[in-house]
Amino acid sequence: MRIAIDAHGGDHAPFAVIEGVKMAAREWPDTTIVLVGCSDSILPESIPGIEFRQVTEIIEPEDEPVRSVRRKKDSSIVVGCQMVKEKKVDAFISGGNTGALMAAGLFYTGRLPGVDRPALAPVLPTLSGKGILVLDVGANPEARAEHLHQYARLGSVYAEKVLGFDAPRIGLLNIGTEEGKGTELTKSAFALFQADDAIRFMGNVEARDVLYGPCEVLVCDGYSGNILLKNTEGVAKAIFDRLKQELTANLLNKLAAAILKPGLKRFAKEMDYKEHGGAPLLGLAGPIIKAHGSSDATAFYNAIRQARRFVANNVIAQMEEEFSRGRGE
Amino acid sequence: MRIAIDAHGGDHAPFAVIEGVKMAAREWPDTTIVLVGCSDSILPESIPGIEFRQVTEIIEPEDEPVRSVRRKKDSSIVVGCQMVKEKKVDAFISGGNTGALMAAGLFYTGRLPGVDRPALAPVLPTLSGKGILVLDVGANPEARAEHLHQYARLGSVYAEKVLGFDAPRIGLLNIGTEEGKGTELTKSAFALFQADDAIRFMGNVEARDVLYGPCEVLVCDGYSGNILLKNTEGVAKAIFDRLKQELTANLLNKLAAAILKPGLKRFAKEMDYKEHGGAPLLGLAGPIIKAHGSSDATAFYNAIRQARRFVANNVIAQMEEEFSRGRGE
Repeated sequence: MRIAIDAHGGDHAPFAVIEGVKMAAREWPDTTIVLVGCSDSILPESIPGIEFRQVTEIIEPEDEPVRSVRRKKDSSIVVGCQMVKEKKVDAFISGGNTGALMAAGLFYTGRLPGVDRPALAPVLPTLSGKGILVLDVGANPEARAEHLHQYARLGSVYAEKVLGFDAPRIGLLNIGTEEGKGTELTKSAFALFQADDAIRFMGNVEARDVLYGPCEVLVCDGYSGNILLKNTEGVAKAIFDRLKQELTANLLNKLAAAILKPGLKRFAKEMDYKEHGGAPLLGLAGPIIKAHGSSDATAFYNAIRQARRFVANNVIAQMEEEFSRGRGE
Repeated sequence: MRIAIDAHGGDHAPFAVIEGVKMAAREWPDTTIVLVGCSDSILPESIPGIEFRQVTEIIEPEDEPVRSVRRKKDSSIVVGCQMVKEKKVDAFISGGNTGALMAAGLFYTGRLPGVDRPALAPVLPTLSGKGILVLDVGANPEARAEHLHQYARLGSVYAEKVLGFDAPRIGLLNIGTEEGKGTELTKSAFALFQADDAIRFMGNVEARDVLYGPCEVLVCDGYSGNILLKNTEGVAKAIFDRLKQELTANLLNKLAAAILKPGLKRFAKEMDYKEHGGAPLLGLAGPIIKAHGSSDATAFYNAIRQARRFVANNVIAQMEEEFSRGRGE
């Protein structure tokens, strides 16, 4: 198996990427990791299982996505997506510009037949520890009901084959649990989901229940999903920030905090989405994974683990099958 | 001043309502509180400053809003809204069925001239302690840009006159801070906000920043606002639930928790939206406030304080002025 990774993607690149790649190369000798970067000086030693693919350009986080992938054709993001298309690698991972990765995926890797719009699908942590796949979280701010239906089908295959959920339950993000709640979009999507026997639709899910893990796959339009994702991050961060203040307020509190530290650290780790790998761009014709911008070495290592499962379980072929079945509808 | 309150609204009604009313009557002798309920036996003693208005029906939380306010014409919610219209009271508070309160407000109290759709506008807690007014959070799941603009104008007046913010900053909930981000709706709303000199528009606000209080008024469509509100509640609850587990995991942790208890309690109180009173239905022709369903006596007392400010500062008249100014646009 060959997995390409963007040496320049993420706040801690290239060092965190290289450390993660080294960890992965040690762990999985059956996998060749192709580091796509501007200078091979970032990887001075020759390490078994790691190849280097030289490029000359970098797409910056603030670059306008569509324009940058059209212009910077020798950037790590564009080259990574092309390598997937040309089957020079089996998967590509980047912690860089999300919009550019999506645009490069669309232009250079292409979509699965039957999919209108690929979706960005991260796993949010849940109290149960299993996590919940949420899609779309912003690849496409606006969606029609048939797009949400495609997300549900893509998410269902991915959750089963990569995340290991048996017959994953699909929920529809909405502002009430009863049928008939919400917008024209959610009402139409509800009807489409309910009519599809190939997915295990369990109804509307309210935003307050998401972290309790009411389903394995949560479907929403990109605008709402982005609000949900960023709000979850923001509220958790705000509470942990405030908690830290409390725990360091005085000497006695610091002592109490020292006692609680192992448990709180475990908890913070559970809530850390980086533990769950990156977010796949579901609906593209190859496995392309967006690692979180703040990824550390472990996060990149986890993203490589995830890409391995994506490839080993032949997920793209199964999505193709799902959508060829759907074409006769 | 006369403020009516629904004796039957909320999970802890009528007892929490009555306790809150008693606290308010003691605190503000200039205010007569009209308890609207089915049986005066719920208030056995005669208390100075408290009147009773008998009704014969109750709208239940699970009742379909529009149908119930049309049929149950002698319910506390309908009668309360009518009393505002007929100027028998200056304001009405209910902790009951939100949709029914909105429907009764529309049918029996009416809208302000120039307002298409009233919005539900709660205050979310922020780390700074000042709170942030968010509207709409679900009165109308779908909105057009001009509705968002109306929310911004209504929220601006309310935040200044009732919440006491000087020249409140208006933010637009969006999936990126740059202009041009988001959906057709947010793009059009951005342009309308920017062109209006009477509001202090500070641009797009991302969901991850809301609890840090980036502005005083946050505008969004009802569907997104509802997702934001319920997600904030849900994430905070999930974290506190999990924290509780950690704090009681063993004897040593319980000891540490005892030390931290006062600080953590203070923090939990800061995060409690009940401290911020109820959510006004902005855009109706009178002050109508939705108290949270889980309101306790203090929350009802706080909602009465808020209704007093709403009335004393002549906010409805100022909103009318704001919208008469706008009519020539």
